[in-house]
Amino acid sequence: MHKKIAIGLLGLGTVGSGVVKVLSKFDNIEIKKIAVKNLTKTRNIKNLNPEILTDNPDIIINDPEIKIVVEVMGGINPALGLITKSIENGKHIITANKELIAKHGKVLFELAKKHNVVILYEAAVAGGIPIVMPIVQSLAGNKISKIAGILNGTTNYILTKMEEEGSEFEHVLKEAQDLGYAEADPTGDVQGYDAAYKIAILSSIAFNKRININEIYKEGISNISPEDIKHANEFGYKIKLIAMAQDCGETLDVRVHPMLVPKKHPLASINDVLNAVVVEGDAVGRVMFSGPGAGEFPTASSVAGDVLSIAGEIEKTGFPLPIMRCKHDDTNAKILDINETKNKYYINVQTENLPGVIGDLGTICGKHGINLYSIIQQGIVKNKTARIVLLTEAACEKDIQAAVKEISERPTVKAIKNLIRVM
Amino acid sequence: MHKKIAIGLLGLGTVGSGVVKVLSKFDNIEIKKIAVKNLTKTRNIKNLNPEILTDNPDIIINDPEIKIVVEVMGGINPALGLITKSIENGKHIITANKELIAKHGKVLFELAKKHNVVILYEAAVAGGIPIVMPIVQSLAGNKISKIAGILNGTTNYILTKMEEEGSEFEHVLKEAQDLGYAEADPTGDVQGYDAAYKIAILSSIAFNKRININEIYKEGISNISPEDIKHANEFGYKIKLIAMAQDCGETLDVRVHPMLVPKKHPLASINDVLNAVVVEGDAVGRVMFSGPGAGEFPTASSVAGDVLSIAGEIEKTGFPLPIMRCKHDDTNAKILDINETKNKYYINVQTENLPGVIGDLGTICGKHGINLYSIIQQGIVKNKTARIVLLTEAACEKDIQAAVKEISERPTVKAIKNLIRVM
Repeated sequence: MHKKIAIGLLGLGTVGSGVVKVLSKFDNIEIKKIAVKNLTKTRNIKNLNPEILTDNPDIIINDPEIKIVVEVMGGINPALGLITKSIENGKHIITANKELIAKHGKVLFELAKKHNVVILYEAAVAGGIPIVMPIVQSLAGNKISKIAGILNGTTNYILTKMEEEGSEFEHVLKEAQDLGYAEADPTGDVQGYDAAYKIAILSSIAFNKRININEIYKEGISNISPEDIKHANEFGYKIKLIAMAQDCGETLDVRVHPMLVPKKHPLASINDVLNAVVVEGDAVGRVMFSGPGAGEFPTASSVAGDVLSIAGEIEKTGFPLPIMRCKHDDTNAKILDINETKNKYYINVQTENLPGVIGDLGTICGKHGINLYSIIQQGIVKNKTARIVLLTEAACEKDIQAAVKEISERPTVKAIKNLIRVM
Repeated sequence: MHKKIAIGLLGLGTVGSGVVKVLSKFDNIEIKKIAVKNLTKTRNIKNLNPEILTDNPDIIINDPEIKIVVEVMGGINPALGLITKSIENGKHIITANKELIAKHGKVLFELAKKHNVVILYEAAVAGGIPIVMPIVQSLAGNKISKIAGILNGTTNYILTKMEEEGSEFEHVLKEAQDLGYAEADPTGDVQGYDAAYKIAILSSIAFNKRININEIYKEGISNISPEDIKHANEFGYKIKLIAMAQDCGETLDVRVHPMLVPKKHPLASINDVLNAVVVEGDAVGRVMFSGPGAGEFPTASSVAGDVLSIAGEIEKTGFPLPIMRCKHDDTNAKILDINETKNKYYINVQTENLPGVIGDLGTICGKHGINLYSIIQQGIVKNKTARIVLLTEAACEKDIQAAVKEISERPTVKAIKNLIRVM
């Protein structure tokens, strides 16, 4: 008889349930034990044998028959401790836990190397989209220069709806929460933390360096207005929350913030909860991967792909999996300070409707070495105020910040309504 | 000293040159010999040691030090014989040769299994886009239901230009030939043969069956007019040459023909020479991979990824590569006859401008069980003729063909200008 590969599951929430359902189709895989918090909870899984549930995860990590531990609990504790012990016990690890890999990847990969096991985490970035393996394997011949992605479905949904309906951020967020697309506490998504974990993981693979998550510049979408979206559209752009990383030689430029994306750029047509990642390499040019970035089954698809890969190796060779060891250099990347980055900018200024205001803005920009590319002046908004929207050519962030400060101090200027970088 | 993995290259055309340039960055790889037709030809490769060139490929396939043979000659002969002998001599094979894999894959994969070597061919489908490995590995947990792609850059370029410029097919083809985007004999691209090889290969991986290339229904783009593109646009569609394969239970529905693609579908925004593949699976839902489908460096990127994968395995384990053995069942797929397929249709009819013509068309369609979804009648074109464009709901191909025949025989109908399937 064909011997099954025994796996243990840590966690049986949304993703865990998906993993059980997807793997049930494969007769070479046996889910031997599942660690859960609550043994008596009703679960929507057909033919789930209650005897494989346990509320003691140690039973899994100490079972010598279990070769692969799949962690789908999320969060740092107790996941980190359980994975650490599993590795020490010689088990291969598959995880969907972006926070864990982004924060503790370095230590875990070193430990795994020492114990001759692998850690796979396709599901930790961009849900069902194959992206980790393609970068590590298929694109291995490339020197990667840039990665840019829409890596958070919640914020992409909100921006899409704001555009379609012309609605305010707060209104669409509430709607998304009602539909279950946004969490009760949306901070992690809306402020860019979730996308930052994911771009940190992709950067570490693409550039073969470790990223300190705290050094990534993060800016969320709560400040984006329907008016910004409308103006961006007039200039030929969409507004998206972009997570990006680019190789600047000595430093890596890694950040998460909203951007005006040209409508012809492939990321501009990624709407609703979809995710996408664009990878630019010296040989391949530009490739894009897009699809569902979250959800029970898409995430389970990536977990299952990792499980079947390891199981295939164990079955056929009994060997660990050299090829699946993602390269992980010990070097920490030096992250480029946001003030030193170069970008084009969209600036939305509320001014008094007086003659000479546009001239003033132009003079200030010129003084800071910033060339203007395009200007829209919108007549009188209300209370004698006008709206002036500028697009600049590429300029240094610190020069822009200095210019914006000076502009905001002009007596004719009522407010800088927004400053958004342009792709 | 780190021991290099010796590889031999069969062919040094565009793709071969790219492979040499890309692999020169990797100090664990040594290109030991390159078989060329013409030893004295000047080649645009820096620091190419002329001593590694040979006009006798047997030197490569008989060299016991060469572990990997990279075939980038294209065509069936002499590639097939050389690869066969290389496998028999225990060498791993990497090829960019779609025709060879589509026509002779079955025999070659069996031979490779017998000799415990692998054949990788990421570059044979969609150039630089990682698609073979993602399907085989990352999406392995899915039952794949459908693959649809834009797999030929030349025809996509022509259709894009026809739309942008409103030009005729013949005119844009000539332009593409002048620019080097289309070959002097464009038949293979324009009539869908190139895309058919590629969808045959993707089908065999996704559905684990062998496809007889001759059973794939193929229809090219030479019959598409700017007027069709304009009408499609009015209905909310783009016209693309689509290669598709879907699982119909007992049969596989595999074909290549132009389609009206809804503008919101991700394939609709793939323009110019770009390629893209959409994969639909039960767990993942829908993912798309897009990027450059041809060219020296993109194709070399995929070849290099395969080379580095095998080299990594050989270095670390000395082992063959079980995980990289794409599943290849011996079963031949039963291909669904085009007459039995179900589609929505776009029908472009040139009629006399007489009352009752639209009623006639509606009656004929109704008689054949075809529901109309939308109609555009364009006033008088010239010589008292009118243009009527129909979109149908889903119907069986054979019913549509019968209806179209009956329509074309009406005395009021001058010509069926086009019949295009709708996605």
